[in-house]
Amino acid sequence: MDGNRQRVERIFQEAKFVRSLGIELTGVGSGWCESKVSVAPALQQQHGFAHAGVVMTLADHTCGGAAGSTVPADKDVITVENKISFLRPASGPVLFCRAEVLRAGKSLIFVEAEVMADGAKGRVMVAKASSTLAVIALRQEEEPPR
Amino acid sequence: MDGNRQRVERIFQEAKFVRSLGIELTGVGSGWCESKVSVAPALQQQHGFAHAGVVMTLADHTCGGAAGSTVPADKDVITVENKISFLRPASGPVLFCRAEVLRAGKSLIFVEAEVMADGAKGRVMVAKASSTLAVIALRQEEEPPR
Amino acid sequence: MDGNRQRVERIFQEAKFVRSLGIELTGVGSGWCESKVSVAPALQQQHGFAHAGVVMTLADHTCGGAAGSTVPADKDVITVENKISFLRPASGPVLFCRAEVLRAGKSLIFVEAEVMADGAKGRVMVAKASSTLAVIALRQEEEPPR
Amino acid sequence: MDGNRQRVERIFQEAKFVRSLGIELTGVGSGWCESKVSVAPALQQQHGFAHAGVVMTLADHTCGGAAGSTVPADKDVITVENKISFLRPASGPVLFCRAEVLRAGKSLIFVEAEVMADGAKGRVMVAKASSTLAVIALRQEEEPPR
Repeated sequence: MDGNRQRVERIFQEAKFVRSLGIELTGVGSGWCESKVSVAPALQQQHGFAHAGVVMTLADHTCGGAAGSTVPADKDVITVENKISFLRPASGPVLFCRAEVLRAGKSLIFVEAEVMADGAKGRVMVAKASSTLAVIALRQEEEPPR
Repeated sequence: MDGNRQRVERIFQEAKFVRSLGIELTGVGSGWCESKVSVAPALQQQHGFAHAGVVMTLADHTCGGAAGSTVPADKDVITVENKISFLRPASGPVLFCRAEVLRAGKSLIFVEAEVMADGAKGRVMVAKASSTLAVIALRQEEEPPR
Repeated sequence: MDGNRQRVERIFQEAKFVRSLGIELTGVGSGWCESKVSVAPALQQQHGFAHAGVVMTLADHTCGGAAGSTVPADKDVITVENKISFLRPASGPVLFCRAEVLRAGKSLIFVEAEVMADGAKGRVMVAKASSTLAVIALRQEEEPPR
Repeated sequence: MDGNRQRVERIFQEAKFVRSLGIELTGVGSGWCESKVSVAPALQQQHGFAHAGVVMTLADHTCGGAAGSTVPADKDVITVENKISFLRPASGPVLFCRAEVLRAGKSLIFVEAEVMADGAKGRVMVAKASSTLAVIALRQEEEPPR
């Protein structure tokens, strides 16, 4: 599991887009991953809420973290497809995400993610995503140092 | 239609996140919208391709543009849900998107979008998205000047 | 709630297709619905498992039941879209479904459903669905007796 | 291709559920498949339209036919996930479906399907589906006779 934690940390550190949005890994275990992002002005849409693209990026990458926590060291994961439902406007200064693996098969991994925000009535779910990821061979340049 | 073109232009200009990614509106008509984005290093994932979040943002916002082109001046559109399939890695220096309305109802609009990239064998589809949007009343602060 | 229970019972009784498949309502409350179906030979695909269409029908109709439990007596619900992930082959003689409302808005309701089957290792999830439903006016012929 | 036509014909003939609904294969080629179904009373929902489950079964199975037309003789396809948007009520006495492969990879195949119905204004699209299928080894009992 320690190796997998390092892998997931690398997934968050090496994705420039995720870093440029300020998305942070906040927790990872076998089959789950948690993250958060502060909704800076540059991440907003025309009404001042987090843009759907930010919510989708947060959910997608956190699903990737959860899936990545389940595969052997010589494997990697890539997103095949995902769907997201926007339950409420993504208001609030910070978005929190938790992704959980529903089923980790040899070649395909099914993951779900919730995106939450703090509002006047406490923390509420603003979006729910489901994602399919494929297990692929780790690219050479990414092999962990021996 | 001219009013709707202005509305779609505004949708692209006023969304800070879309501007910060460099996504540009390249065309709009009744029921369709086209856009593109240059894949700067900050938009990449760990393998050097455009991050899934960039592809999803491009598709979602362009679907919003296509849907927005179909509603009256006192209405606006918001994304209810979308799904995207990643057919190939989003390689290439520029991503192109075209969204088309499948059905524009009074309260719901169904839109599809293709994301294309130029590769060694010409332009290929790298992702296909489908989105449901809801028609809502235009917010006061956004009303067009009389 | 009693009125809503009756409405959900009616949703299951009056849908000929659901009756012809042998799908039964097994429980309903505010924001949730449970059902089951025996996988008769006529419901199988070429490998002897329940056909994906049976699993999707079970999930979709049970989502409709859960959504229907949340709306006023003069309203009805219709499916806008749904997505389903097939986690495992739907083996086993009986499929069980539970649907839960994630968010019930005035015009749109978001619901999730799990489909379970009993296998050698106990009950497992074979499919997970997410659905958006629209709230519409009840059709005249369906108005409850006064 | 002839071998693949036979495989797709078998996919439609051997699925008892598809036969019991009266779904017929009407055409197949490399990367596409067409089918239809007469909406008998047993296939209706409470308002007299085709039940969503019938529309989903038609779309899913026809996607399977289109995907099946692209794989070698020793391979089979299974549905990983699908999404369907219900654009209009599925009225009319017959539903027609056409599925097309967007991308056929070695291990995953992406397919889309349209479901059409004849109404007062001519043939209209009542639903649009997108599906991911996995390529698997053909089961022994299904091997074509030598």
